[in-house]
Amino acid sequence: MSFDPDALCYDDRGLVPVIAQDAEDGTVLMLAWMTAEAVRRTLDTGRVTYWSRSRQAFWVKGETSGHVQELVEMRVDCDSDCLLVLVRQTGPACHTNRRSCFYTAVRDGVAVEIITPEGT
Amino acid sequence: MSFDPDALCYDDRGLVPVIAQDAEDGTVLMLAWMTAEAVRRTLDTGRVTYWSRSRQAFWVKGETSGHVQELVEMRVDCDSDCLLVLVRQTGPACHTNRRSCFYTAVRDGVAVEIITPEGT
Repeated sequence: MSFDPDALCYDDRGLVPVIAQDAEDGTVLMLAWMTAEAVRRTLDTGRVTYWSRSRQAFWVKGETSGHVQELVEMRVDCDSDCLLVLVRQTGPACHTNRRSCFYTAVRDGVAVEIITPEGT
Repeated sequence: MSFDPDALCYDDRGLVPVIAQDAEDGTVLMLAWMTAEAVRRTLDTGRVTYWSRSRQAFWVKGETSGHVQELVEMRVDCDSDCLLVLVRQTGPACHTNRRSCFYTAVRDGVAVEIITPEGT
């Protein structure tokens, strides 16, 4: 069955959440959002392209930082309302210069930083 | 710094997206949503508890199916608007009886089923 980006279930802002996972070692890197057009651009270019909610603009991941995400495979969930992109990540995925955005763990009720910024 | 579920950034419905990942092998199992109270219950009980948007009720994962998720660790992202829960998953995570909800891959423009239901 051919895949149609317009057939996904978008929220009332026209967005779908997207989980980015490192294709090599399975690290969950970040969660961001795509419009149907961002899904199309990601598939067409192989460069993961989100929709920036703060800037209200397309966001080709790494376009300014160089920390690009090369698409290895896109997957869709059972309800067609969430995507998983397996990526080859260049450099850190997080804007704080950490490999993953999920660098804070909750341990015994305390927020603990478990990943340090790269190059520090 | 002590972790306060109320300090997370919830959307206009009072929800935060939550990625569930198998703590053993890193498989991304599903994405669901939590309220602040669901975050608290998950941490207090060690049983991953979502908010069901369709039923508008707390959803102790596996309560009826037995396919529970035991919390191994909760992580928070850099913007405090998304959670990652590492879990010990009993049985399939997906209501379709598949290990993961992300069982459809997009390959050359075609939607391909890559995980079959368990017991089939």
